[in-house]
This record gives sequence, C-alpha cells and structure tokens, in this order.
Amino acid sequence: MKFDYIHDPSEIENESFRQIRTLTELSHLSIEAQQVVMRVVHSVGIPAVATQVKFSENACESGIAALKKGAPILCDVEMVKQGITKRMIKTDPYCFLNAPGVPERAKETGETRTMAALTAWLPYLEGSVVVIGNAPTALFRLLEMIDQGAPKPALIIGMPVGFVGAAESKQALWDLHQTLGIECITLLGREGGSAVSSASCNALLRCIKGELY
Amino acid sequence: MKFDYIHDPSEIENESFRQIRTLTELSHLSIEAQQVVMRVVHSVGIPAVATQVKFSENACESGIAALKKGAPILCDVEMVKQGITKRMIKTDPYCFLNAPGVPERAKETGETRTMAALTAWLPYLEGSVVVIGNAPTALFRLLEMIDQGAPKPALIIGMPVGFVGAAESKQALWDLHQTLGIECITLLGREGGSAVSSASCNALLRCIKGELY
Repeated sequence: MKFDYIHDPSEIENESFRQIRTLTELSHLSIEAQQVVMRVVHSVGIPAVATQVKFSENACESGIAALKKGAPILCDVEMVKQGITKRMIKTDPYCFLNAPGVPERAKETGETRTMAALTAWLPYLEGSVVVIGNAPTALFRLLEMIDQGAPKPALIIGMPVGFVGAAESKQALWDLHQTLGIECITLLGREGGSAVSSASCNALLRCIKGELY
Repeated sequence: MKFDYIHDPSEIENESFRQIRTLTELSHLSIEAQQVVMRVVHSVGIPAVATQVKFSENACESGIAALKKGAPILCDVEMVKQGITKRMIKTDPYCFLNAPGVPERAKETGETRTMAALTAWLPYLEGSVVVIGNAPTALFRLLEMIDQGAPKPALIIGMPVGFVGAAESKQALWDLHQTLGIECITLLGREGGSAVSSASCNALLRCIKGELY
C-alpha cells in the first residue's frame, strides 16, 4: 500500500493557496484582506465562505499596526489562543477562561464562562487585537461593554460559530461597528470557529513578516 | 445598546442541539453515532455536513471501550489536543509535533512535522484513539504504517481539512479500513479540522458520562 501525496510542507501550502485563488474571487480586496480571506477558506475547506468575510474600512491596517507594536491578543477560548502562530508573536496571547474567579463568577451570575472572562480583559482592551472564535455571548458582551465606555480594541476579529446567537452576534458587530467606532473582521452566518479566527489573526501577522500568498 | 441573547450555557447548548436535530436526519444512526454527528455539525455550524460523516461498523463501540479504559489519545496537532474536554479524561492527550527531534527529522526528510511526529506514536498506538484534525500527510502515513504492521489503534478519528490531500486521505481511510482491519470515523470531502475532530472524540467521552443530547 503506497499513497501518492505531497510530503513537502511548503509545496502543500503553495498548492493549497494556488487552488484557493482559483476557487475564489478576491480582486476587489486589498492584498492584506485577500490574505485573511484565503486563510479563512483554507481553515474550513469551503471556498464559498469567502463572500461572507467582511472588513470594516481600516480593519487590516489597524490590526497590523497594533500587532506590529506587540499589542495584547485577547482570545475567548484556549483553542483560539493555541491557534495563533507562536513564532510570529513576542508575548503569548491572553485567554482568561480559566483565570481565578472566572468559573465561580459565571456560576454565580448564570452566564457563560466566556462572558464572565471579559471582566479580566478590561486592563488589556485598549488598542488590543480581540479574537473571538467560539462564543457569541462573549462578542455580545464586548459590544455592550464598548457601548458603555470600555476601552476600544484596535481590531475585533469576531467569528463565533454555531446555531444560537453566532450569526446574530456577528451581524450585530457588523451593523454597529461604525456607530461604536471600532474596526472589525467578521464571517457572517453560522460558520466560524477557533481555526478561522486564529487563522485570520495569523494572516495579519504574516503580512507583517511579508509572507504573502 | 442592549442585546437579547441567551446567557445561560446549558440553555444555549440544549437549544443548539434541538436545532441541529431539526436540521439533520439522524434516525438511521445509533445513539452514539448521532451524538458524534451532532457534535460535528455543532462545531462547524453547517447541518449539511451530517451526511458526510462515516462510521465503520464498530467505530463508536470500539472507541468508547478504549476511552473507558483510559487508552492514549493521540492528536496530530496542538489545537486538537486543546479541544479534548479535560474534565472527561484522566491523562492528557498526546501530541508529538514539538517533541525533541521531530522538527529536525522533518527538515532532514523534507516531510511535514505531523508526518515526522508519527514515529513517536508507535509505543502508544496499540488500542489507542487517534484524532487527526489537521494533517492529511499524518493520516496517509498512519495508514502506511498500519499496512506495514504497526500496532492498530482502537479507533481512528480522521478528519483533516483542506485542499491538498485532505479529501483524498479521508477517502483512503474509508476505502481501506476493512482491508486494514481498523475502526474509523471520518468526514468525507474537504471539510474537517481541529474542532470537528476533537468534538467527535468529546462526543464519545460524553457517551461514557451519559451526557446525551
């Protein structure tokens, strides 16, 4: 039994992105936005989601500038944190899901742990890059906090996945980002997840390194 | 600004699975297989993938029996490992992607790190539960190793995602599992990833705990 498959990692990656370029229409996007969309498609294996990715006017510029300065990266869940490519960052991303007091506070208030964890984000929010890949409740709560005067991130990558609140929370982010004065990248609809959201952040980090596809 | 969304985590989960049951046809599957398919759908947000999930004859039974005995869980990448629900297992899953010698061996042989890491799986393979969510090359290499006489896992959850080799490696797993005498769960096509594959393993772990939807 012998299979015919490519062993070389850079050959695999190059061929993947070549195929993704063929299967998607990206010409209306900036080079940086193209990188994000291609990484999103790459991480779900579905070219059709390309049209669901939305960028606020200066999303990529703002995110890249923040990441260049070593801004904090705030993740809703550990899988997102794990998905950020470590060789491209100087300090570990933050995830406060299991921080002292968070599970207890979530139990007390009857809300999700990802929501409860957002209180711990406050000291890091200003100028940060937020990456939400799992929890619609965290995205809703973040929008409420910003509306109530919390410091603003430089970029919100909001791509929670699922059936309850995911599509709604992303639509709210997209509809309200101008009112709230925030930059965002989102993937409208039910699709999303840890992999697409960390891949989006990785795409911006790669832009800084000049690793373009 | 006030959003109307469910805060309670168990209410969110129950409503998610209620919707997934409505949107998918699962009646031909065993209770355990239904749990796996629902978790896969849950983690990608796409009901249509339900029909792409395939089970070998005793996949769930064999996987559940192994997990009950505390069999090693072998993951191709760290995100898959991170996705396995820790409260349901006694020992951490294994991922050898960054193990000593693996990156060096990958460079020497010009193959992917996930492939190179499989050498480190050998002492743990017998009766294990393998969870491959990212790397087609790891799945191909595993099939080659088993064909050449390597010990057999109790279950292979093979769900790599992407454009180069992903669909082909899963098709090979599905076509050859009987010849090789292995049990498997796979998601045919390009779709897959860390979240769906760890979710499949988590579904089996939940069956053991009696946490059924």
